[in-house]
Amino acid sequence: MKTVTVNASQTYEVKVGRGLLADLGKEIAPRMGKGRAVCLVSDSNVANLYLDAAQESLEDAGLRVEPFVMFAGEIHKNVRTYAKLLDYMAENQITRADALVALGGGVVGDLTGFAAATYLRGVGFFQVPTTLLAAVDASVGGKTAVDLDAGKNLAGAFYQPRLVLCDLNTLDTLPDDIFADGCAEVIKYGMIGDPDLLDKLETIDFRADPEAIVARCIEMKRDLVEADEFDTGARQLLNLGHTMGHGIEACSDYGISHGKAVAIGLTMAARTAIAHGLCPGEVLPRLIALLEQYHLPTATDYTVEALYDRVLADKKRAGETQTLVMPTAWGKSELHQVPVRELRDWIQKGLTL
Amino acid sequence: MKTVTVNASQTYEVKVGRGLLADLGKEIAPRMGKGRAVCLVSDSNVANLYLDAAQESLEDAGLRVEPFVMFAGEIHKNVRTYAKLLDYMAENQITRADALVALGGGVVGDLTGFAAATYLRGVGFFQVPTTLLAAVDASVGGKTAVDLDAGKNLAGAFYQPRLVLCDLNTLDTLPDDIFADGCAEVIKYGMIGDPDLLDKLETIDFRADPEAIVARCIEMKRDLVEADEFDTGARQLLNLGHTMGHGIEACSDYGISHGKAVAIGLTMAARTAIAHGLCPGEVLPRLIALLEQYHLPTATDYTVEALYDRVLADKKRAGETQTLVMPTAWGKSELHQVPVRELRDWIQKGLTL
Repeated sequence: MKTVTVNASQTYEVKVGRGLLADLGKEIAPRMGKGRAVCLVSDSNVANLYLDAAQESLEDAGLRVEPFVMFAGEIHKNVRTYAKLLDYMAENQITRADALVALGGGVVGDLTGFAAATYLRGVGFFQVPTTLLAAVDASVGGKTAVDLDAGKNLAGAFYQPRLVLCDLNTLDTLPDDIFADGCAEVIKYGMIGDPDLLDKLETIDFRADPEAIVARCIEMKRDLVEADEFDTGARQLLNLGHTMGHGIEACSDYGISHGKAVAIGLTMAARTAIAHGLCPGEVLPRLIALLEQYHLPTATDYTVEALYDRVLADKKRAGETQTLVMPTAWGKSELHQVPVRELRDWIQKGLTL
Repeated sequence: MKTVTVNASQTYEVKVGRGLLADLGKEIAPRMGKGRAVCLVSDSNVANLYLDAAQESLEDAGLRVEPFVMFAGEIHKNVRTYAKLLDYMAENQITRADALVALGGGVVGDLTGFAAATYLRGVGFFQVPTTLLAAVDASVGGKTAVDLDAGKNLAGAFYQPRLVLCDLNTLDTLPDDIFADGCAEVIKYGMIGDPDLLDKLETIDFRADPEAIVARCIEMKRDLVEADEFDTGARQLLNLGHTMGHGIEACSDYGISHGKAVAIGLTMAARTAIAHGLCPGEVLPRLIALLEQYHLPTATDYTVEALYDRVLADKKRAGETQTLVMPTAWGKSELHQVPVRELRDWIQKGLTL
């Protein structure tokens, strides 16, 4: 087992290892008052596999458990599910001294975290990510949110968990496709700033023995987030592949998964960087080969017009320039401010090198 | 004009005076970037009276204004209105650099504040309270929330405004009944810890010249909140009259207004305190006379059983004892921890002295 300590506005540990789910109750109970309750949130896919084990572990540790199972899928990460969860908590006498446990992937984690941030203006929050993507992406950073009709993650809060337990056994049951989604984020970490990680990904069988790599990604995110908790500077490096990735997701009406879209976004960032002379040309074929090794796509048929519109729509959240993350070497990236009027050209270069 | 400076997690000013609405734009613009936008939230009652003036003042200061008018009434302080507001903001390209302005009473302020706390994980927030209750209660403390089906204020956040402008002219247009609601809170402040304020309320025509008294209440709340931003200790003094007040509101299915319920709650607290020998008996008739002077009720027909059930249901948010605020003299109160098993008896005494 590996432990990563995160110093956010509140310090907490991320534990990564096999079989941790069995210890869930033992880990959580000492971090709460005696005889307290937890609302255990999961989705219809994950609940079938792990809800009973999680509930048993929590109950064995003397906690009252109120399970809440939401429908699986990003489409249910909305205000209606959020309100339903909070109503359920109130009806089951969850108090300020109690807590929420998120057992699932990013959707469950984001929604449960937002519920924890806002129920009675804040209750305890524990995370048990069960996908690779959630383990390496959502367990650090404190970003919680739900989607609105007008867009993804529009309602949210920065809120830190008290503990994150990544039981690597849960990754074994992931469909290949969902595991691949997480691999896109893992490769992203390597491209942001760890050539050794990339070398390892090229040579080892990562799925059979994910502990070191998952922990390394969490450490990298921890380091970037600690330097910039409220997402105004260095943390934006984490958006490598994501500006175009979000555009691709939106173009596909979210038919293309986040991980696949980020994989394509990574190649687009590399193409643009190379076209602008920011990055040596040999990075691109090596990146494409690595993404393909992990069964990820490396190109898109969407037009520059379609992507430009989507990226611009997304820009309502930013100012008058767009920050793009550009790879500058194998395992190294930097932030670039691009005036919005040049954005179309930068996207074009990402499609055509 | 009087200015009260509040040192919460963020320092801001509460300005209290006549005619401040005309300066809204001039006050807000320098606290934001140039050419930014504000989403101006009001309700169907207040909008008729003040929306145009507020919008004009903001636009004259060079701000883009996106007005959002919600239906008036606590029943609309819900997740649906909240989601509608956030969707509206997204559709109107409100960015992280923009802000929300709440123009209205407590309902508008609570909902707008929660929207500001959570839209894109937090945008700027300005408050223009237009009721006495909102001026003395909601402009300090950072409590924002919306109601859920399961109860009031169940979804919320602590979030500080950047500036609060109380234009006392807006209080002149309040129906007598709504003004009286605010008076209950003003009398509460006096009973918590300011006998001079109570003496003034007994002798002057407060409605004609509210500046000093409104500012004094805001200062008192400021002092209690600064000592206890996250509501775990001294701030609970602000709940004087509220534990029973909430019970009465709930018993009436919110047909009895918050202010009226608090007025009754104040008399119940006094009766209970006197019965327990915590407070001299002469406080009660003087309190009743003062409340009656401000057209407020001083007794209820609800039974101890009905109130006990409601107070206990409300207790889901607390632990195994109930903190009650007890007056101990004319203009002085203290916290008392009461075991839940004795609560029924304490309520009984509040009804029957």
